[in-house]
Formats: sequence, C-alpha cells, structure tokens
Amino acid sequence: MNAVELINKKKERRALTEEEISFLVESYTAGEIPDYQFAAFLMAVRLNGMTLRETGALTGAMIDSGDSLDLRFLGGPKVDKHSTGGVGDKISLILAPLVACFDIAVPMISGRGLGHTGGTLDKLESIPGFRTNLSIKEMYRALKRVGCFISGQTPEIAPADRRIYALRDVTGTVDSIPLITASIMSKKLAEGIDGLVVDVKCGEGAFIKRRRDAVILARWMRKVGEKMGKVIVTVLTSMDQPIGRMVGNGLEVWETVRALKGRCEPDVLELVLTLGSRMLMIAGRADNLQQARDKLQSMLESGKAWDKFRKMVCFQGGDVAVLQKKNAFVKAKYQYEVRAVQTGYVSAIDALGMGVVGIDLGVGRKRVVDKVDHDSGLEVLKKVGQAVDRKEGLVVVHSNKPLDGFFLDRARRLFRISKTPVKPPRLILS
Amino acid sequence: MNAVELINKKKERRALTEEEISFLVESYTAGEIPDYQFAAFLMAVRLNGMTLRETGALTGAMIDSGDSLDLRFLGGPKVDKHSTGGVGDKISLILAPLVACFDIAVPMISGRGLGHTGGTLDKLESIPGFRTNLSIKEMYRALKRVGCFISGQTPEIAPADRRIYALRDVTGTVDSIPLITASIMSKKLAEGIDGLVVDVKCGEGAFIKRRRDAVILARWMRKVGEKMGKVIVTVLTSMDQPIGRMVGNGLEVWETVRALKGRCEPDVLELVLTLGSRMLMIAGRADNLQQARDKLQSMLESGKAWDKFRKMVCFQGGDVAVLQKKNAFVKAKYQYEVRAVQTGYVSAIDALGMGVVGIDLGVGRKRVVDKVDHDSGLEVLKKVGQAVDRKEGLVVVHSNKPLDGFFLDRARRLFRISKTPVKPPRLILS
Repeated sequence: MNAVELINKKKERRALTEEEISFLVESYTAGEIPDYQFAAFLMAVRLNGMTLRETGALTGAMIDSGDSLDLRFLGGPKVDKHSTGGVGDKISLILAPLVACFDIAVPMISGRGLGHTGGTLDKLESIPGFRTNLSIKEMYRALKRVGCFISGQTPEIAPADRRIYALRDVTGTVDSIPLITASIMSKKLAEGIDGLVVDVKCGEGAFIKRRRDAVILARWMRKVGEKMGKVIVTVLTSMDQPIGRMVGNGLEVWETVRALKGRCEPDVLELVLTLGSRMLMIAGRADNLQQARDKLQSMLESGKAWDKFRKMVCFQGGDVAVLQKKNAFVKAKYQYEVRAVQTGYVSAIDALGMGVVGIDLGVGRKRVVDKVDHDSGLEVLKKVGQAVDRKEGLVVVHSNKPLDGFFLDRARRLFRISKTPVKPPRLILS
Repeated sequence: MNAVELINKKKERRALTEEEISFLVESYTAGEIPDYQFAAFLMAVRLNGMTLRETGALTGAMIDSGDSLDLRFLGGPKVDKHSTGGVGDKISLILAPLVACFDIAVPMISGRGLGHTGGTLDKLESIPGFRTNLSIKEMYRALKRVGCFISGQTPEIAPADRRIYALRDVTGTVDSIPLITASIMSKKLAEGIDGLVVDVKCGEGAFIKRRRDAVILARWMRKVGEKMGKVIVTVLTSMDQPIGRMVGNGLEVWETVRALKGRCEPDVLELVLTLGSRMLMIAGRADNLQQARDKLQSMLESGKAWDKFRKMVCFQGGDVAVLQKKNAFVKAKYQYEVRAVQTGYVSAIDALGMGVVGIDLGVGRKRVVDKVDHDSGLEVLKKVGQAVDRKEGLVVVHSNKPLDGFFLDRARRLFRISKTPVKPPRLILS
C-alpha cells in the first residue's frame, strides 16, 4: 500500500477500503505521508466524494489517532450539542449549563471562530480568567463536580483531525460533506457521549448555503454516528439573520447572562428549547418533546441554569463577580448607532455580511494567528419583520477603534427595508 | 491574488486567467506557494480539466520560468521530434542524425525512462563516455558543428516544468491532458525550434491507452504550439507491441547502429520514414511526403546518417570505436532463450508487460534515484503475425543476474499464440 496508489484510486472514483483509509490517516498523522500527497488526496475527495462507508472509516481512523474520553464512571447519560456554525450563535453557552441541570453530563468540546462565524471559546475567553484549555483530567473533574464544561480540543483528542483540518483550510478542501462529517463526528464521538444533537445551519450566513446540501450533511452525520452506536439527532435551522441581538465575544456573553437570568430573546429561546428538548429525550429525561420543552423552560425560569453557568465559569477559572456587570462586557471605546434612512419593515439582514463586518471589527480572525477583540461587535436593534421608522436605530456598532462613515454605511446596508409588512422568517426548518 | 482563491476557482470549474496562471507558476517556482497548495491545484486540474486557453497560458508560464535556446544564428530550419513514450522506442537515436543530414538543425532535448517506457538518455549513456548534460553553449556548438544533439534538460530550461513534473509524479496527477501538453510543449518550444513532429503513442504499452484521449492530446499540442507560432505535426501510432526487436539500453543502441548501417527493422524504418518525412516537410526540404520518404531512405542507405551519428557521439564525448563492436552492447552475463510451448502464430505481445519485465531486469527505474542496468533487456525474436513452431525461440532475456523459471515464464506469457494466421497490426493510426 502506498500513498500514490490510494490517491489514484480516489482519483478514478473507486472507493477505498477501511484498511486503506486507516493507512492514509495513520501515515499522515505520523508524518510518513507528506502534506503534498495528502493535499492531492483531499482534493480528490472534495471533487469525487466518498461513500458513507468510507466516511465512517475516515471518522473512525481520526478518532483512533488519539485518546477518547471514557465517561462510563459517571453512570448517568452523556449528551452534547454541536452547531455547524452561525453568526451570533451563543446557544452552547446557555444550553450546556441548562441541560446539565437535569443530571445529564455535557462534555462540550468546542472550537474557535472560523471565517465569518463566531467561536464559542473566543466568546467565553472574554470572561476574565476563563480557561478553555482543560486537560482530560480536568474535564473528568468538571463533569463530576459541575456536570458540564466548555473547553477546546486537547492535543490528545483526534490529533489527525487537527492536522487534516489545518491542511484543508489552506488547500480549498473545507467544503466537502464527507470531510466535514468526519471532522465533526471524530471530535464529538471522542467525547465519550451516548448521543449528540446537531444544529445543521443553512442559508446565506452558514457555511452550507443550500438546503439540499444541509440535508445530506445531516443524514451523513446521523449515519456515521449510528454506525458507532450513538444516537444522533439533527435539526436543520435557518441562518439567514443573526441569532439573538448580539454579534461579538463579550457582547454575546452578556446576552447569555441576560438569557440565563430570564430575559432571553425569542429566537435564542426557540433554539435552546428545540435543541435542548432533543438532548433531554436522548438522555431519557422526558416522555415527549413538548414535555421536555416545558421542563427546560421551567428550569431556565428557576434560575438553576444561571447558577450552573456560574459554577462552570468558576470551575474553569473565570471571574464570577464580573458576570453581573454589564460594563465588564459592553465596554468598547466607541459605540455608533446606525439609523434607518427610510420608514418600513426590516425584510432581510445579511448575516454573512454581518459576520464579515465582525471580522473587520476584530470579532473574528483573518489569519489563524490573529488575536480577537473581545469588546467589539454588533448589537442588532431591529430583526427581520420588525417595523422601523426613518432615523430609528437599526444596529449599534461597538468598536475599540474609531470608524468612518463609509464603514457605518456598510453596517447600514446589511439591513434591507421594505415598505410592506414582512413575516418573520422560519427559524427551525426541519 | 492568493493560492487558495485560485485553487477554489479551479475546484469550482471556473477558468483561470493568463495572469492567474502566471502567478501560480511563478510563485510556485519561486518557492512562495508550498507544495501542498500546488498539489491540491494539480488534482483540481486533473479532475476538472483546463481550457485550451488555460493550457496555452500554462505552457507560456512554464517556458518563461527559464531560458530558451535562441537558434536564429543558425540561419536554417530547426525541427525536432517528440514521442510520448513507448517500449523499445529508439526512433530518436536514428532520426536526429538522419534528419540533420539534410541541413536541418535538430536540437533534441530528451528525457529519462519513465515508468515502463525507456528513456533516450538512458540508452545513449550505454555508450562509454557519452555526455547527456550539455550546457546551452555546448548545444549551440553541437548544432553548428554536427547539426544535432541529444541531451537532457538543462537547469535553465523550463525549471517550472521540472518542479511541477516531480510533484505530479508523486501526487497521481501525471495523467492529465492539459498538464502533459504543457509539460511537453514548454520543454520543446524552449528549444527555439520552428516546428515539431509529435509521435503520439496509444495502446496498452503507451501512457495513453484510449485512442480518443490520444486524439485530444494531439489536438491540444497542435493548438498550443500554433498559438506560439510553431508548426506542430502529430502522428498517432500504435503502441501495442514493442518497437523493433530490442528493449533495453545497450541493446537498443546496438539496434540503432544496425539500422544506421542499413539493417533496419521494418517497423522501425516505417516510424523513421513517417516521422522524418514530416520533419523534412516542415523544414521545406521536400515537395511532398513521398518524396521526403524517398530522400530519407536514400540518405539512410548512403551511410551518411551513420557518419552523422558517430559525429554526434564523438561531440558528446562518447567512444566511437566501440560502436562497431556488438559485444560492447550485447554483453549481459546471462542470456536465456524463451521458447514457445505450442505451434501457431504470434497474435499479441504485451508491450506494457514487457516494459514492466524490463524494469525488473534493470532497464528502467522503480524510483527516481535508481540506477539503470545498461546491459539487460529483451530481444524479441517473433513479432505479431509471425509463425512460430513449438520449441522455437520467442524472446531472449538478457540479464546480469541469474533468472529462475518463474521469471522466464513471465517473459513467455508476454506472447499470445493463436492457431490461425494473424495479420500484423497497423502501426501508423493517423
């Protein structure tokens, strides 16, 4: 078996065996296959695809490249949630402590901002002291003491995924359904969970624009997870306008705090209940989805999720005292209110564009080595379907550097205003 | 402009501009684009193709990566021949001196053995002292004094091609019509020639198996060459049985010597006349193809081509005296005659298989760093269509190491024997 032979096989649209895929992943991770050969292989996969069986084998080989969490000692159910990435997506921050209140272990290994979408770890790091680099031992302790954690991928977990992802990023091979499936599932299944709820985002603000592709990705993740004996539930959600009101790191933590204290934006709540109810069902904590939603809503109102969040922040070294202070999170030097130039109804908000504006403000990274700005971001005042008067505010731009009229005009143009009323768009697609 | 953007463009089947292709080739040759990005690009080209315009731009960028010969000082016509590679293909060795006898400069920059096909340089190096690393200055002198040379690509000529070829070789991206076209044409057009005759081989023993692909490759080479103001004539020839009698390095030089001294195998002669007559036409040395063939045949019979060959060998440092001695070229330690096991007619000879047996004998290389064995090879006693009696010899295997019955049986199985007479196959396809 050698690399060129296997590249040729994929190039000629023949399916690779499990052994061949293991050989490729192991040899690449061990540095025995050079980057250029693996890059050619990735492009052949991107263009010729992979069967479900191949994708499962790739996922397995990536899990086997490192350690997995062994959570059997916990006794109870272990369930996680994953989102394929959105703009203003702070659901994980609310959901992990909320679901953990039901004696469900939530071992949430998360990522950083990717392109125009925010990263859960970047957001949490705007809490002073918060550590996102827990060791596997600390993860075990967090689950025992708190019931949940949100931390980054350790070097021991799916190292092949880390290496392959870095190569995909620079070779135009990110947008491949089998490669996305294997990357997500290898990291998540290495968490030692019983089941996973995946929020597959689609629309202009998501990585996957077309519903058809999102359906395929969802199906593949389910099939690969089921093959490994896990329960995988996927929910297709729209990513056509930002989620909630805030797009930014500190800003989204502040929105999370408000949500956990009972003032949750309607679309954020809907996502929390939709995704959370499925996590409860997997864990056997509810008889049906409606009951699960009701339980989640009561728990949120009880204030126990807010307590759990603070316990998690405390365990991970974060400053719990500042969580009460708005000016610890909403503190950019400049705040510009961008106003509507005509009266009407917001008919669309360009979520992708808002993500890109966010990158320019420092919310996200242009290059992997860039540091994010925890204070900057956008605060959406009007969402799709809302009426707006001329000169009324559409969005507040938070920035640590002064912005010119040109930049603010870009922010204004993210909003489309129609003269006739507009129905708010559907959030949960299927 | 950056590499990932251009990889994505090709991945999405959009055509690159001339500027974009120049950027890629220049940056890669300068080491500014890493191998893994260029590998992903090559695989995208292999799978999504390139337009004729893109292929022309690629060829141009590869020529511009280095120096070109400037042969205007010679005054007369400058014509070369290229073959896409065959088994037992010694045509260049005969054709270069023969055509040079007509006061046509033949600046033949050749390559080494590739896979199962032999390399002109490897063959010539079985002449003691023969140098295949002429500098550009020596090439100029050779053309002035002798009228032809056969030497390797210098570091100055199309360095981008050398780099890209090495990467294609290890990334499964050799078999791409636009990449083959650009590689061949960049090297050949950098020779400063007026015209080129290309022997496009197709069949089981060639790199291009299907006639349809050979026709496309031929068309693309013509179009790319014509865009650069050159006359390109392509001839499709069959590569279904070895050319001539000998497959090997020293063995083929000995067959060349015999051919130049008037004992040319019929299929070798047919190729020499077919390709040579087109070279004469391009150079304006004949009124029509038949006249050109007659002139070539007379020249071969006159012995002048043999003189020219010796002059070329002498100029390039080779030992002219040994050219007369059979035992300087047919000198492997062991010679095994492999005999037919039944009476009948040879209906097929597996040229690809013979090339692979040749590699195992040391005629060609398994890895780039391997050294070839100049003495080993195969001497075909019966060609397709010839009658053979049981126990009559089919092939003599020349080897410097002893061979077992298993190996010789492999050689025997290269021949298919039919009970009914078989027509010799067509050599020139179009």
